Amino acid sequence: MPTPNPQPTFVLVRPQMGENIGASARAMWNFGLDRMRIIDPRDGWPNQKAVAMASGAGRLLDEAQLFATTADAISDCTFVYATTARPRDLTKPVFSPEEAMSDCAARIASGEKTAVLFGPERAGMENDDISRANAIISVPVNPDFPSLNLAQCVLLTAYEFRRQGEIATPTTAAASHDMAAQVEIEKLAAHYEDRLHEAGFFFPDHKAANMKLNLRNLWSRMPLTRADVQMLHGVMRQMVRWRNRAD
Amino acid sequence: MPTPNPQPTFVLVRPQMGENIGASARAMWNFGLDRMRIIDPRDGWPNQKAVAMASGAGRLLDEAQLFATTADAISDCTFVYATTARPRDLTKPVFSPEEAMSDCAARIASGEKTAVLFGPERAGMENDDISRANAIISVPVNPDFPSLNLAQCVLLTAYEFRRQGEIATPTTAAASHDMAAQVEIEKLAAHYEDRLHEAGFFFPDHKAANMKLNLRNLWSRMPLTRADVQMLHGVMRQMVRWRNRAD
Repeated sequence: MPTPNPQPTFVLVRPQMGENIGASARAMWNFGLDRMRIIDPRDGWPNQKAVAMASGAGRLLDEAQLFATTADAISDCTFVYATTARPRDLTKPVFSPEEAMSDCAARIASGEKTAVLFGPERAGMENDDISRANAIISVPVNPDFPSLNLAQCVLLTAYEFRRQGEIATPTTAAASHDMAAQVEIEKLAAHYEDRLHEAGFFFPDHKAANMKLNLRNLWSRMPLTRADVQMLHGVMRQMVRWRNRAD
Repeated sequence: MPTPNPQPTFVLVRPQMGENIGASARAMWNFGLDRMRIIDPRDGWPNQKAVAMASGAGRLLDEAQLFATTADAISDCTFVYATTARPRDLTKPVFSPEEAMSDCAARIASGEKTAVLFGPERAGMENDDISRANAIISVPVNPDFPSLNLAQCVLLTAYEFRRQGEIATPTTAAASHDMAAQVEIEKLAAHYEDRLHEAGFFFPDHKAANMKLNLRNLWSRMPLTRADVQMLHGVMRQMVRWRNRAD
């Protein structure tokens, strides 16, 4: 059973080595965080090397939730951060760990459900993963030696979240219970993508993937409420209805 | 040759495992610190396991200065911090890593020479070591799981020192020249409104004004870039083209 203390969920995206999963669990628990989700771990699950490395933080692995895709793993979250060494999508806000965890603490205090994505060890996250995040976390490492490993990145982020708790008596905030959950954004993105595909928008073929990525990035960057999402669905439905009447 | 950039010297007090010395070098260099001193390492010096672990940060080990005692290692320093999980000597100031590195940055700026002591892996520092420090650094770990290892403690301290530098010279803000101007948002809103009107979206009549208002509010609340605006124009144009082909 996850403990009730408010905290972000840490999501390991396709982690490779069990040792790094275990070390990430330790790093989280060092700062009192215990909600881990794991997407498609390379060596399957459970993983004995992860258990051996986690030692005193093994409970996090027992309670970790497994998912097949990034979309599934964050479907119930209202705000998602992606950690990356090289922020590639500069149209999303890029936060330092401190700024991000300060923002995260404020969102949690106002009832939002947040997650932080951590990419696989070597490859880093794919653009498709990052396109589902609302904001980027970039650790200000030495540009000549940007070699933070997975557990170190988890450690710094957990440390910053805990530090915000020490600093903060969180601000009472806007009615963010109205914000759309990721699963709703995902459905909106899929709705537009499907209809625009039918309408021949993604042309020429070699540009299609990039156009889809840009469109997904657009939706995920916007602070959309549930009402916004409903209206945008309505806009697209109406355009389709109009088209069908013209048949 | 140590680089001239002002920084604290990190002093490993009687470290045991070579791997941890190498990992500490990496952690320092991740945040641009490269002045390491080592007191009486258990397995002698140089240490091949340290070198193997340090990989890209091997230079720090080549340049590390060796000392027999804590007193020798800090003899040229004007202010010394000791990291410890359990602050025992309460007559000294106890700083968080942030407070300590803020203090450290200020001292360096005023010409002081500072050092941070990190204790051996299991035992921690002896009272004799701590007695030579001017202040204590205590990392706010989970009291139920205070298991930071040596390199993690080095990592957090280096991160905090670097962060103080970032705070002092704040980063220039995001590329806001990419944001759409109000006139562009206005044209986007008008484009959608006109086409949706044709398509019969604003129905029934008595709700039309409110629906238009909500849609305009949506566009104006969103942090849209110029590229976003172009894409949203393209989406609507394509839906109209699709419809017209169906005529």
